[in-house]
Amino acid sequence: MNSLAMSRLRGLRADEVRALIRRGELDAPTAGMADGFVQANLAILPKEFAADFLDFCKANPKPCPVLGVSEPGDPSLPAVAQGLDIRTDVCGYKIFKDGRCVERVSDLTAVWRDDLVTFALGCSFSFEHALVDAGLPVRHIDCGCNVPMYKTGIATVPRGRFSGPLVVSMRPFKPADAIRAICLSDRMPLAHGAPVHFGDPAAIGIRDLARPEYGDAVPVAPGEVPVFWACGVTPQAVLENAKLPFAIAHDPGHMLITDIRNADVMGVPAR
Amino acid sequence: MNSLAMSRLRGLRADEVRALIRRGELDAPTAGMADGFVQANLAILPKEFAADFLDFCKANPKPCPVLGVSEPGDPSLPAVAQGLDIRTDVCGYKIFKDGRCVERVSDLTAVWRDDLVTFALGCSFSFEHALVDAGLPVRHIDCGCNVPMYKTGIATVPRGRFSGPLVVSMRPFKPADAIRAICLSDRMPLAHGAPVHFGDPAAIGIRDLARPEYGDAVPVAPGEVPVFWACGVTPQAVLENAKLPFAIAHDPGHMLITDIRNADVMGVPAR
Repeated sequence: MNSLAMSRLRGLRADEVRALIRRGELDAPTAGMADGFVQANLAILPKEFAADFLDFCKANPKPCPVLGVSEPGDPSLPAVAQGLDIRTDVCGYKIFKDGRCVERVSDLTAVWRDDLVTFALGCSFSFEHALVDAGLPVRHIDCGCNVPMYKTGIATVPRGRFSGPLVVSMRPFKPADAIRAICLSDRMPLAHGAPVHFGDPAAIGIRDLARPEYGDAVPVAPGEVPVFWACGVTPQAVLENAKLPFAIAHDPGHMLITDIRNADVMGVPAR
Repeated sequence: MNSLAMSRLRGLRADEVRALIRRGELDAPTAGMADGFVQANLAILPKEFAADFLDFCKANPKPCPVLGVSEPGDPSLPAVAQGLDIRTDVCGYKIFKDGRCVERVSDLTAVWRDDLVTFALGCSFSFEHALVDAGLPVRHIDCGCNVPMYKTGIATVPRGRFSGPLVVSMRPFKPADAIRAICLSDRMPLAHGAPVHFGDPAAIGIRDLARPEYGDAVPVAPGEVPVFWACGVTPQAVLENAKLPFAIAHDPGHMLITDIRNADVMGVPAR
């Protein structure tokens, strides 16, 4: 996408970007679009697994902060976006069968079922927005690539058939900037909150920073420390791990753009 | 002090502990006394320097968070403690002449002057209280010694004749605990707020963690990182540096116990 087009998409409201996507006029990673609006990770699964998955999210609020849950079969989700049709308003979806991704589609109409429940989960774009606003350098943004993500040796809290390792994203900072990034992200519990670790990757079971399981490696400069946040890819890894007969997720980077303002998810988390 | 006496002092209200000190019945470090009340660092200096010192504190809010400033010559300070007589209600004071400490006294009545202005500045006891409440291990408390403090290569923002290096206190934590400690202290801007640095001491000009300029060295275990907070000793070092003809500070560890509740200085700092 050229920078003029991106500049226009940045200034649109969330519902305006969703309308473009619904009409098939936009299919691209959504980072930076509809500036100021919360973007969300998606998990869509049959009703029979929904209660367990909600339990799992509640037991693992850092990787899986719940923004909203739909009624079974209902493609709308008014708690997060007015007039939403979840079947058409995200530009890329992945279809999973028995835990394996079998297809990437840009519309769910053909595969929709009356028993499907949609989960919208918080996403790191919101806190990255706050970091950039505060003047902090975010490496993968400056490098123009995807954030590096790693499977860790930290287990999520299992619930029902849902379990698996915590996936983290990594952003390197000088210590004083890391402290500011920690404080800023702590105020956004619905966007993964404060980090889970910084420093030695091996301490959380990461063998090689240069080989992320998802996304792109970024350089860590001398005097910087890698800082690790719980990541919204965790629920996708957990869905795969659960080997559900049928499930849907967003294509990573192609998020649901909600009507929730970033400012509305700022706040001090309860402890 | 035996543990029974400390247990009794912990349960008293701030005004009750001040009354004991005023009657000369208590002369001891105040850590742990009047549980839940904010304790304060003291700086008392002639009116002619007060405006510059207030400017200095406002320019350096992390080491010098201002809780209250008195009228010249007035030994009361109702904004921080009802019925306070600052000349008698702290159990140890240091008298400075031309920047050098010339005496330690337990009463200021004999040296009080009509031009003296009292500054009450926030203290790390409040955030240490929050750390302990959250179940985080605070090394110097567990070791039963004073917190280690270091002069750094970081300059404070100079104002008038006030300048000098930032002094920091250090507490070691495992990274996940360091993140929680950073988030908790960030919510207490009147108790020094979030740390200024973690990790490599040399990056902020500290040569040897085993040789603190003030307080006692504590062990840093494998897998732990030293975390450095702006320290209330900074204003004392700055007062010495300014070589005022006359100034008074509290004897370190022997703080002013205020009527302000720790809960009342919790909050999200403005940024």
